[in-house]
Parts: sequence; structure tokens; C-alpha cells
Amino acid sequence: MSTKPPSGTRDFLPDEIRRREYVIGVVRDVYEKYGFEPLETPAFENIETLLGKYGEEGNKLIFKILKRGEHEHTGEADLALRYDLTVPLARVVAQYQNELPRFFKRYQIQPVWRADRPARGRFREFYQCDVDIIGTTSLLVEMEILSAVSEVLQRLGFHDFVVRLNHRELLGAILNAAGVAPPQQGEALVAIDKLDKIGREGVQKELVSRGIPPEVAASCLDLFGLEFPSGLRAKLRDDERALYAIGQLDEIREMTSKSAAGARVVIDPSLARGLSYYTGTIMEVNVPDLAGSLGGGGRYDNLIGMFLGRDVPAFGFSLGLERIIVVMTERNMFPADVARGGVDTLVTIWNHETRAESLALAAELRRNGLRVDVYPEADKLGKQFKYASARNVPFVAILGDDERARGEVGLKDLRSGEQISVRRNELSGTIRARLQPGVSK
Amino acid sequence: MSTKPPSGTRDFLPDEIRRREYVIGVVRDVYEKYGFEPLETPAFENIETLLGKYGEEGNKLIFKILKRGEHEHTGEADLALRYDLTVPLARVVAQYQNELPRFFKRYQIQPVWRADRPARGRFREFYQCDVDIIGTTSLLVEMEILSAVSEVLQRLGFHDFVVRLNHRELLGAILNAAGVAPPQQGEALVAIDKLDKIGREGVQKELVSRGIPPEVAASCLDLFGLEFPSGLRAKLRDDERALYAIGQLDEIREMTSKSAAGARVVIDPSLARGLSYYTGTIMEVNVPDLAGSLGGGGRYDNLIGMFLGRDVPAFGFSLGLERIIVVMTERNMFPADVARGGVDTLVTIWNHETRAESLALAAELRRNGLRVDVYPEADKLGKQFKYASARNVPFVAILGDDERARGEVGLKDLRSGEQISVRRNELSGTIRARLQPGVSK
Repeated sequence: MSTKPPSGTRDFLPDEIRRREYVIGVVRDVYEKYGFEPLETPAFENIETLLGKYGEEGNKLIFKILKRGEHEHTGEADLALRYDLTVPLARVVAQYQNELPRFFKRYQIQPVWRADRPARGRFREFYQCDVDIIGTTSLLVEMEILSAVSEVLQRLGFHDFVVRLNHRELLGAILNAAGVAPPQQGEALVAIDKLDKIGREGVQKELVSRGIPPEVAASCLDLFGLEFPSGLRAKLRDDERALYAIGQLDEIREMTSKSAAGARVVIDPSLARGLSYYTGTIMEVNVPDLAGSLGGGGRYDNLIGMFLGRDVPAFGFSLGLERIIVVMTERNMFPADVARGGVDTLVTIWNHETRAESLALAAELRRNGLRVDVYPEADKLGKQFKYASARNVPFVAILGDDERARGEVGLKDLRSGEQISVRRNELSGTIRARLQPGVSK
Repeated sequence: MSTKPPSGTRDFLPDEIRRREYVIGVVRDVYEKYGFEPLETPAFENIETLLGKYGEEGNKLIFKILKRGEHEHTGEADLALRYDLTVPLARVVAQYQNELPRFFKRYQIQPVWRADRPARGRFREFYQCDVDIIGTTSLLVEMEILSAVSEVLQRLGFHDFVVRLNHRELLGAILNAAGVAPPQQGEALVAIDKLDKIGREGVQKELVSRGIPPEVAASCLDLFGLEFPSGLRAKLRDDERALYAIGQLDEIREMTSKSAAGARVVIDPSLARGLSYYTGTIMEVNVPDLAGSLGGGGRYDNLIGMFLGRDVPAFGFSLGLERIIVVMTERNMFPADVARGGVDTLVTIWNHETRAESLALAAELRRNGLRVDVYPEADKLGKQFKYASARNVPFVAILGDDERARGEVGLKDLRSGEQISVRRNELSGTIRARLQPGVSK
């Protein structure tokens, strides 16, 4: 029997969890400061809640759960694992419409599951950190979420990210103006989305290979090269929807220019974002050393209507926990105390008879706020030190016969190797002082 | 299409999550102080990892996931949702044996899924808070976990819980001595476990209905009525395993008598605990106003061997998050600020032109650590107040024309209805002072 986790999933050992919890803690803190409130939904949904929401490709990637009991042999599935956090949110808004405030601002940090082919950095179980505002078409929503996401990234230590911003209606208008037939626009967007990765020539080739005539493809690329907003405004001056979209983007840029997020915002008319449910502004966060995005989002004014029966405007943004951690790990961005491990001091067992005294000492240190492990058996001191080292514990407290007789405790600093004797009532203070960063003696 | 969560699962709206996070925070804090480190495992396991570990009943309650892609039509399942946190731990110990410290102390707080018939307080998705120590048979493990669990409960405000303690080998010895044939001992334990609920007569009846001869049942009940340890020691003096088990229980009682947990520990020779993998000491936490237990655990020295190929001693304890929350809610045990909601202040929008100023004010308040929502649209002030009330926000900041001209901000306390005018640079301080519990002016 294999003891590996299932393909595409991971076990998280303590050090990894500390890194994850650190990032999640910052995300949660910032989102709370912006007035968002937490929501959690079940790991699985009724299967009909999910089917048909993610396109044909998405349908295939949904994990389906067999009916139980006597129905199990039919091979039928009635439940499915959460595929994203947006569809469950739409269901929640419909279900609790009378309990939720007029504008529902929620964040949700939970795993989702997709039966994608596992690859480097692509998992079948991964976390999304979503933030959404339901109930208004006001652009203040876009601005608030831009600020919040920027603050999350800055607090984590990112100073070189770019938030690209676009509008679905501008995209559509450009494709129309270039002469891309509506049924081909989806195909065209897939190619155009790669402009920053494969360049103009690459996209021209891909557009043609996707059945767009070469001259239409070239015209498309010309339009995407126009300056925002003046060039686009002039070119699309007869398209009311295009001018509306340009106006919205311009207003966001203008209003955020005074905020911390402002310097990071770039209007990019070629930004497409894959998901089909977006209807208005879309955005994506990138850093230079990551091929994909750290997160993205957009306005989806029709999705909730699929559950509620009437449309409710909404805007959401999702940060990818795994990608943030990959970049932060490669760049060595985690604070030292996140890496340090979870135990401050190991209390040793001198011999079988003094076990109770060791437990009592541990209780004292814990009452003073320290994280304390007790070696569970009477054993050679060397083995107890070795165990502390293996757990990355900086201090070992020794209650030897001599120390006990003097009302003292032996304290070994495993980082320096130094061992001192400390009055028992001063032990917590001594350990605490030495744990301060920068104070090694 | 139904918008309810699937049968037996729940959506957690913000207030409920705050209560859950509060409890989880205390559990995590205490377990970290005791030197436990966090572990997380995937929501699903390979199906063969889970099958056969939970008995025949358990097998039926496992949620199974259909194979994907071309295999989907076969109706075959290759994955299954996590059923508890102990079997995944055993797999992890086998998989990472060379990376883990000699004694692995881990806590794990994650949901598990069981296809039980949903009922009041019984869910198909629920959280377990597990704490385990792997790698030693030392009784210090039992003592440390007893202390940690007691501290969790005390920190949460429980002062009337009892930790019942027993030993599987003592149970077996008593059943042997009473003349219960080994194949019937499982059946007998199910009945005896109910002694505190249905009383002596009830258990006598149930034993007989489960095929135990009446005189054996009576003898069984007599033995369980014996005093611990003296009565049992005298009666079972020829059974070496029984004397060993009694000695262990007595030692735990003796050693913990000096600790905070000591007063709460009771030896109960009739405590059985359902799970079949326990091999030594077992324990369970009860409060008077809950029929089931708040948590339970025990020593399981053989389970890890099923994955590792060699036995590794282990002891674990699991707290039931849902049950703790049920009792805390009924008893009104949550601190006031857990119930208060997530937003300190709503910044209103005076009119469309002053939106940027409202955003700037919100940014100032957030920099000072307050949790701030901004009303997203220009709207009647009355509607903005109403929204703040619906979200349970205590303060509303109003940037009216007069206030702006004076460098002030209007501040309405929605709890008292009072409205004052505050110098803009004193606003954060004023809000913060009024948020202090006990200070309403």
C-alpha cells in the first residue's frame, strides 16, 4: 500500500504550514481591515450546482462523489468537490438573500479541487483566497479591492508587482472593430491573452492557426497597440459600449492614482482572463519572476442570477496561495520567526523519579507564554539534546540533581552550544530575552 | 435548482465563523504551547488507504470519489474523503519516517466527512481537532495530553468537565473474569459503554438482548461496580495484564493529581470508546449538559504498523469542534468581542464628487488599525446608516460639507444614537476609546 498522498495533493508538514499560515494571516488581516467578513462553504456541493458553470473543460475537471449505500453500485454521482469559491458564493447569496446585508463583502480562504494533470506548481488540491463585493455596480468596489489586494502584497513584501486592468466590453469592441466574427472571439482571446508571453509575432501566428484570417489578426494586433485612452477613444468613437468601458477604466486609474495601489496599476487592453462569467472590469496581478499570475478577478454581473433568478452585480478577486508561497520561498521573503519552528524550549527528563518535577517546570514556562516540549522518557541527555536539535528547538532546560539542590536550572543554548545555570524563577525571562531577534547572548 | 448546501453540510456565515475561529484559535494556541506542531493532509486519500480501517460500519460511511475521464463510466472509485485524522497521520508517519523527529507531536484541525444520516448536531462535514504523540509508550504522553486538553477547555471557560479514564486491557480483563466469551466482548462493550446513560438495569437488559447469559451480565456489572484500584486489584490479582493496566491508570491519576487537570480526572472502568484500534489507555471528556462527549482519545499502538510494517506506539486525542460550539453557544460562553462583528466603522459617501475623500479617510483609519467599510455609492444618509446597522457596525463617519470645511468628521455612535463632531486627526483615537468594553461615552 502506497503511503504517498494521492497524485496532485500534498501533505503539509509543520514548517510548510507555518509559511502558509503566515500568508493566510496577512490576507485575512488586510481583508478584515477593509471590512470584509469571512464565509466558509462545504467541501462538496450538489453536483447540479457545479455542472455547467465552468465551461466544457471545467466540467471534465470536477471531482464527482459516488452516491452512497444501495445506490453506490449504479456508479451515479450526486455530489462534487468545490471547483472554485465563486459559484458557492453565488449559491450562498441566493440562499441567504434576506439575511445578508445590502452589500455583501466576504472573503473566503479554502481549498478547491480540480482533476487537472498534476505538474510542477499545478496541484489537484490548492487554496484560493477570494474577496468579493456583491450588490453594486459602483466602481468604488474595484478601487477598494485594488487597494486591499495591493496592501496584502505589500505587507507580504512584494514591491515589484503590477496590477493589469482591462474591461470585457473594451475587449469585445476591439475584436469587433478588427473584424473578428463573434463566434471566433473566444478563440481569439485565448491567443491575445499571451501577448506579453509570446509577443506580437507569436500571437499573430496563433490567431491564424485558430482560424482568424491573417489580415484580421494583424488589424487586431494594431488595435491592441493603440495608446490608452486617447488612441482607443479615437478609433472606437462610434462604439458607445467601448467608450463606456474606456471611461470606467480611466476613472479607476484616475481615482487610484492617489492611493498606495495607484503606482502599480496598468491598463492593458489585451488582458483577457480565462473565465467565461466575467462581464465588466477584469484585473490580474503579475510579478516578473512568475509565468502565471499571483491572482486575478473581475466583475461578474450575471452569475448570481443563475441561482437567484434575478441578476445581482458582483466583483471578485482571487489570490493563489500556492503561487504566492512559491515566489516568497524562492525570494526568501519569509520573516525569520516563521522559519524558526514551533518550540522555544525542551525540558529534559533527568531520571524516572524526577518526571513530575520536569512536568511542573514545563507548566511554569508555559504559564509564562513559552512553547515548551517535555522529553517523554528518562533517557541519555545526549539523546535528548539530539531530539531538540532535530526539532530545531533553540533551548534545552536541564533539571539535574545539582541544579535542583541549588534551586537552579541548567540552560543550554543549542545555537551557540553554551550552557549556563539560571535561578529557576528567572528561567522564563532569560529564555525570552535570548529569543529576541538580534540578541544572541 | 436548490440553493441549500448539500444534506448534512452547512454554510458558515460571518458570525458563526468568528465563533469557530475563536475556539480553533484557543485550541491551536494551547497545543503550540505544549510543543505540538501543525500537520495538514489532503481532503481525499487513495481509497485503499481508508478502506478496512474503520470497521464494516465505517466502510459504508466513507464518501467515495469517481475515477475521472474515460474511467468515469465504469462507476469505479479510486479516492475517498478523509474519514478521520488518525489514519492520514499514520500514513504520514510511514511516508516521512526519516524526516520526522523521534517523537512526533502533531496537532491537526481539519474537516472530516462521514455519510452518516444527518440529525440534530450530527453532520456529514465536521471538524476534528486532533493532537497525537507518536513514538513512545511513556505515560508522560497521557499526562501531557490530559493537561493540554484540560487547559484548552479551561481557557474556553469550561469548569465542570470530567475526563474519564480507562484502559482497554482492564476492560478485557473484567469481561474475561465475568465469563464473557471473547467473540461476544465487542457486543458487551457497546452495552457497557452506556452505563452512565441508561443505568445498571438498562445495561443488564441490553447485555442479555445482545446474547450474553443473564448471570454473566450480572457478574459483569458487579465487577464494574468494584472500587478502583483496591477492589479491582483484589478481584483480578491473578491477571497480570489487568494489574499492569490498573497500575498505569493509578500512576496517571497520581502524577496528574498535582496538575490543573488532576481535579477533573476520574477513573471509570466502564468507559469503552467505540474505535477498534485502541490498545491501551482510553479517555473521554464529558460535560453534564451534553449527551455525547466533547472529545476522546486513546493509545493505539498497532495502527501505524499497518502502514509502516513495524509497530510504532502512539497516543491521540480528538476534540469535537461542533460539540464544543453547541455547548458554548447554549451557555453563552463567547466573549463579547467575538459576537460583535467584524467592522468598527462605516465611512459614508456624501456625494459622488467626494468619493475620493471618503476613500482617503478610510485609508487613514485603516492605517491606525481599525476595520473600516466604505459605503460603495452616493446614497441617502439614512440608507447608509441602515446598512451599517444591518452589518452591526458600531460607528459611522460622515464627511459632510460643513465638517470638511472645519477639518472635522461627523461621528455617529449607532449603539447610543449620539452624533458628535471630531477633529479629523483625532478620529481614530476617539473610535478606539469608545470601542473599549465598559466605556460607552
